Amino acid sequence: MTPNTVEKTPVTLLGLGAMGTALARAWLAAGHPLTVWNRTPARTTPLAAKGARVADTAAEAVAANTLVVLCLLDDSSVDEVLAGTDLAGRDLVNLTTSTPAQARARAEWARERGARYLDGGIMAVPPMIGVPEAGGYVFHSGSRELFERHRETLGVPAGTTYVGEDPGFAALHDVALLSAMYGMFAGAAHAFALIREEDIDPTALAPLLADWLVAMAPAVHRTADQLRSGDYTKGVVSNLAMQVAGTPTLLSTAEHQGVSPELLTPYFELMRRRLAQGSGEEDLTGVIDLLAH
Amino acid sequence: MTPNTVEKTPVTLLGLGAMGTALARAWLAAGHPLTVWNRTPARTTPLAAKGARVADTAAEAVAANTLVVLCLLDDSSVDEVLAGTDLAGRDLVNLTTSTPAQARARAEWARERGARYLDGGIMAVPPMIGVPEAGGYVFHSGSRELFERHRETLGVPAGTTYVGEDPGFAALHDVALLSAMYGMFAGAAHAFALIREEDIDPTALAPLLADWLVAMAPAVHRTADQLRSGDYTKGVVSNLAMQVAGTPTLLSTAEHQGVSPELLTPYFELMRRRLAQGSGEEDLTGVIDLLAH
Repeated sequence: MTPNTVEKTPVTLLGLGAMGTALARAWLAAGHPLTVWNRTPARTTPLAAKGARVADTAAEAVAANTLVVLCLLDDSSVDEVLAGTDLAGRDLVNLTTSTPAQARARAEWARERGARYLDGGIMAVPPMIGVPEAGGYVFHSGSRELFERHRETLGVPAGTTYVGEDPGFAALHDVALLSAMYGMFAGAAHAFALIREEDIDPTALAPLLADWLVAMAPAVHRTADQLRSGDYTKGVVSNLAMQVAGTPTLLSTAEHQGVSPELLTPYFELMRRRLAQGSGEEDLTGVIDLLAH
Repeated sequence: MTPNTVEKTPVTLLGLGAMGTALARAWLAAGHPLTVWNRTPARTTPLAAKGARVADTAAEAVAANTLVVLCLLDDSSVDEVLAGTDLAGRDLVNLTTSTPAQARARAEWARERGARYLDGGIMAVPPMIGVPEAGGYVFHSGSRELFERHRETLGVPAGTTYVGEDPGFAALHDVALLSAMYGMFAGAAHAFALIREEDIDPTALAPLLADWLVAMAPAVHRTADQLRSGDYTKGVVSNLAMQVAGTPTLLSTAEHQGVSPELLTPYFELMRRRLAQGSGEEDLTGVIDLLAH
C-alpha cells in the first residue's frame, strides 16, 4: 500500500465484465486499494498493471477486505461465486443486476451468513463510469448505516443515490428507469422509421428529436404531482380527450409511411380505454391505473 | 395602425382555439397588426381588447392581409372555413394539425387557388407560446422563398425551424416527434406503475426519472449515425444480445409488481426478432428496419 492511498477504504471487487472493469479502474484511479477476482483470470492482467491485487479465488478476495462489491452476471452467479466463502463480518454491496425480489432474498441470505448488505443498481453504461459529467449514477438501498459508512467509496465510480432501507428498492428504481428508457427508445425508433423512405437525413432529425424529448421529459413531474394528489386534472395542459383526438393523425401517418404502429398502439389503446371511463378532462396519468392488474 | 407597429408584417389568423388564441396574443404582444376570425365570435372579444381587428367573415379576414395563418381544428375545417374565399395572391401558412399527405394535398389545393403555401407543425402546447425559454418551436416546410420572406413573423410565437421544400415535411417532423414523446410517456407510465404499491413517493421518483431520460435522450444521435452509415455496430455501448438478456429482469419485476408489461413487450419482441436474425453485436437500431412493412 503506497502512502498516498492509505486513507482510502480498501475494496474487494468480484466480477470483471465490462462494468466491473470500469468500476475497478475508477476505484484505482481514486486511490482505493483494490483486490479483484474474476472467473476468467485474463481480465485481471490490465488491472494488476494499474496496481490491483489479484486474488486467486473468490474466497481469498472476500477475505482480503471488509468492503466486498459484487458485479456478477446475474443473481444465480452470486450463489455460485460465493459458495463456500466466509461472509461473516463483511460489508457486502451487490451491484449485480437483479429484480427487487432477488435483492430482498439476497439481503436475507447475506444476513444469515453474518454479512451486512446493500443492494445497488447502476444507472450507467461502462463508458459513463468515472466520468462525472456523463450523468450516470448508482442507486443503493438497504442498511442506511452501512450506506453512510461507505458513501464516499461507493460514490467514486458514478455518484450514488440512496433510495431506502428496503433492499429491493435500488433494483426497483433501476428497473423503473430502464423501463422508461426503453419506452423512449421505442418512440424514437418509430420516429426514425417514419422518415426512413423520405429525403430526410436522420442526423438532421436527431437533434430536433433529442431537444424535444429533453423538453418533454419534465412532464413526469406533473404526472408525479397528480399521482400523489389523486387529482389527474391538476395542471393539465392538453387533456385526454384532445390527445385521443390527435392519435388518428399519428396512426394514419404511420400507415402512409409504411410503418407498423405496434410500438404506439398499446399506449393509445390505454388512453382510449381511460377516456371511455369518462376521464376526458384528465391528463394522461389515468393510464397508469390501467396498468395495474 | 399605430406608428410603432407600422413596420411589422400584418397577420390574419383564422381559428382561435387554445393554440390560435396563444398565437394571436404573441403576435399582438410583438406589435404585429392582427386580423382575427373565429367560428365562435365570443373568442375574439379579449383579443379585440388587446388591439386585434375582428373580421365578420373568413373571407373578410383573408382579404385583409397578404399573410394568412390557419390554426383550425383539422384538415377538413380548412375546406369548410375557406370555401368561397379568394386566396389569390395570399401567403397561406397552415398550422392546422394534419398528416404529411394532407399537407401535400393542401399545398396543391392552395396552388390551384393562386396562393403560396407553407405548412407548419407546432411543437408546443399553448402555455409554451410566447415563452422562448419554454423550448417550443414550429416546424415549417414548403416554399423556401416564402419561408424566408416571413421567417421573422412566423418565428414570433415560438421560434421556427425550416425542414424542407416538401410541404409534408413539417407535419412529418411533427408526427415523428409526437410519436417519440408518446413512447417516452408510455415508458414513464410503466415506471410509475411499478412503484405504485410501494412506499415510494412518485415525486421522489420523478426527478430521477426526468434526469435519466434527459441523460439517455442523446442516444438518438448514435442511432442516426448508424442509420446514415448503415453500420449498426458503430459506437455500440451495450449490444443487442446483452440488452435482450436484460429484459427478463424488467418483465419479471413488472409481473411481481402486478404491472401489465403491455407497454414494453412490443419493443422487446422486436429486439428479440432482430437478435434472432444474428444481429447480437449490433445496437438497438435494427429494430427500426423491422418496423417498415
